[in-house]
Amino acid sequence: MLATAGARPIARVDLVAKGLKPTPQPDLDRLLQDIGHLASICDATTSGSTRRVFSPEYVAGREFVARRMGDAGLDTSYDGVGNLIGTRSGESGALVTGSHTDTVDGGGKLDGVLGVLGAIEAIRSLDEAGIQLNHELRVLDFLGEEPNDWGISCIGSRGLAGELGAYELGCLSPDGTTLEAALAAFGIRAGPATSTAWSQGEIHAFVELHIEQGPVLEQANIPIGVVTGIAGVQRFLIDFHGRRDHAGTMPMALRHDAAVAAAETIVAVESATADGHGVGTCGKVEVMPGALNVVPDLARVGVELRSIDGDWISDRRAEVEERARHAGEKRGVTVSFTELSHEAPTPMHAIGQAAVSEAADALGYETMPLASGAEHDTRRMARLGPAAMIFVPSINGRSHCPEEDTAPAHLKAGVATLAATLALLDKQVDLNGLQ
Amino acid sequence: MLATAGARPIARVDLVAKGLKPTPQPDLDRLLQDIGHLASICDATTSGSTRRVFSPEYVAGREFVARRMGDAGLDTSYDGVGNLIGTRSGESGALVTGSHTDTVDGGGKLDGVLGVLGAIEAIRSLDEAGIQLNHELRVLDFLGEEPNDWGISCIGSRGLAGELGAYELGCLSPDGTTLEAALAAFGIRAGPATSTAWSQGEIHAFVELHIEQGPVLEQANIPIGVVTGIAGVQRFLIDFHGRRDHAGTMPMALRHDAAVAAAETIVAVESATADGHGVGTCGKVEVMPGALNVVPDLARVGVELRSIDGDWISDRRAEVEERARHAGEKRGVTVSFTELSHEAPTPMHAIGQAAVSEAADALGYETMPLASGAEHDTRRMARLGPAAMIFVPSINGRSHCPEEDTAPAHLKAGVATLAATLALLDKQVDLNGLQ
Repeated sequence: MLATAGARPIARVDLVAKGLKPTPQPDLDRLLQDIGHLASICDATTSGSTRRVFSPEYVAGREFVARRMGDAGLDTSYDGVGNLIGTRSGESGALVTGSHTDTVDGGGKLDGVLGVLGAIEAIRSLDEAGIQLNHELRVLDFLGEEPNDWGISCIGSRGLAGELGAYELGCLSPDGTTLEAALAAFGIRAGPATSTAWSQGEIHAFVELHIEQGPVLEQANIPIGVVTGIAGVQRFLIDFHGRRDHAGTMPMALRHDAAVAAAETIVAVESATADGHGVGTCGKVEVMPGALNVVPDLARVGVELRSIDGDWISDRRAEVEERARHAGEKRGVTVSFTELSHEAPTPMHAIGQAAVSEAADALGYETMPLASGAEHDTRRMARLGPAAMIFVPSINGRSHCPEEDTAPAHLKAGVATLAATLALLDKQVDLNGLQ
Repeated sequence: MLATAGARPIARVDLVAKGLKPTPQPDLDRLLQDIGHLASICDATTSGSTRRVFSPEYVAGREFVARRMGDAGLDTSYDGVGNLIGTRSGESGALVTGSHTDTVDGGGKLDGVLGVLGAIEAIRSLDEAGIQLNHELRVLDFLGEEPNDWGISCIGSRGLAGELGAYELGCLSPDGTTLEAALAAFGIRAGPATSTAWSQGEIHAFVELHIEQGPVLEQANIPIGVVTGIAGVQRFLIDFHGRRDHAGTMPMALRHDAAVAAAETIVAVESATADGHGVGTCGKVEVMPGALNVVPDLARVGVELRSIDGDWISDRRAEVEERARHAGEKRGVTVSFTELSHEAPTPMHAIGQAAVSEAADALGYETMPLASGAEHDTRRMARLGPAAMIFVPSINGRSHCPEEDTAPAHLKAGVATLAATLALLDKQVDLNGLQ
């Protein structure tokens, strides 16, 4: 997403930054050691640092995380949907942070991991600076955030938000196992009846530190991104039905070529979404029957639109549909649309954004507002209370690959900003009533 | 192909049409009965009238054809490349006609069949009209004209033209059998060393009657197409290499999307070939990795260009390559090209065209010049001597499907024109020296 997409003025409320002396000073070597250790606990049969949900490496990795939580003075437990939680008692209305330690196949060492190990380092740095939090503290390693064989990402945070229902638990993997059965085999009783969803108001604030997974911060040379929201996502299929003809005998003017109508639509998706307020992708393209000497009668294009601006998505969706119909009409090709999924944008809490921004300011880090095009557990946690996200730059914008990395100085900046943000939010009165 | 594509003025030489009294009068009922009988000898496990090369139905169908040849006073035999030949002796320099009786899977009752059973009916009608041919006559049912599991169409006519060499015979079917082994299992010794290729000058003239397989004659309401030539065919792949990115986090302006570059090229192929002088088709389109949430890094487009005008093909090829490179450059996507096949256009002999045209005139049938976009055995036979083709309309332009059909009056017109063309060409002096 472009830096300015969905940017809103950040509320300049009084965040009592005076509580930030002395400032938290994360120990970069200690953090890098933890990251390196967890990265080494991975599936050796594939590339990168791979820990897919439910795998032995995933279990072993979380045992390491639980030990580090314990070392940092947190009490650890696994909840009813398989989230690993490190807690420290305090005033009710929990201050919550965390991310996930599962990865995609062939993933890198930072996606999710930074938000878990970085949170532990943030707590250590707050302790070492003598900054005490008043609210109850919870550090989470959410179960299975990444896309998996069941098509249900963010399993753990869905469970906390009460969004792990009969539909999700009944989804099948390619080998025919339900998600519910897979969870049960992992020792998790996640049936809707035994849900361990948190209640509204249980959270004082939630903050997730994450790598950007895109090139915007790096290109702007800014270490801290204040996430304005998580983009809404619409996914739909466009099916083009033309007529199958002999490619040698059917003149161009008399064809009903489904592939050309589809191709014109793919180009239209690019141009319709070029204004920088979101993104449009045609990642799935199929043309049938797929022979060089046959005019294609069927084509299918899978379209994904993402933006922090729900109206932009709706408008672009209408434009893409109109241009697809037009591309079809020109060629006597019928066009139909199938809804796949629709997730509304999730704005971050204004005071959450302000806290991140002021925390970074107090530490001397430059910030910029930035929408998240990728999905995060924060989307689900925002259903429960005020939520914020902190981004740090990704080298070359790469993620979900072995090369995924972030400059050490940026890792330190992110963790320090997370620590300071937690400290600032801890001082706030109840945020739930504020926007 | 459009009617005017590659049309050249037809030579108005003296074709001694006076030899055409009385005119041949094909027996439509007898022809339809033969076509119906052969159509009933087919693979009952699939649709249409299917007789794939080497199948039991194919063998049985050819036995029926051989009997009909015999009934028409032709001596029948199978040659060394599996062609069924009905001959009647005469002056050397054979007058040759024919087509094929194999079909595609799910094919119709006329593609190829009309040119074989129609030739037999043409001979019967010449005999009944008392028109004697001076030249040796050969009616052929060429072996395996349609695309098959070995990727080698026109097996029998390639063999006659000396184009069934070690490369073709070594081609493998998906189950790993060579074409040579398949021919041997069918009882055909077709090794290059035992080739039964015909020699240059062995043919006085070759004429093939065929359905158009396209909509041009029907739309013009003209019963007889005088084929000007068989289109040249170029097939090539365009590979687009971009960069795989997260579809949520990579801004549009920073993408290297292989699918959009490919799509722009597909639209360019359509517009570059819209002038009516040929056709351009992108029948094969692949996009990788094929996930909705991933910007595609690889796309492959298979392009086929056909025209009776070789320069048009070269020019369009250059234009398509230029536009593909441009579509790639705009997006930082590299573009590469892979040659698949290249067949030059095959013009029909000027006097052959004139003979078809004058024969139809003499019978009172309107004609139009027409290029063949589809492949035919005539392409190979034209290597050996003067060649001509006669097209009759296809209802709705359909072919290679169960609905493939031609109006009975058009079938009769085609057979009568074939008979009269053979009679006219029989009177000509040696055509080989003429253009």
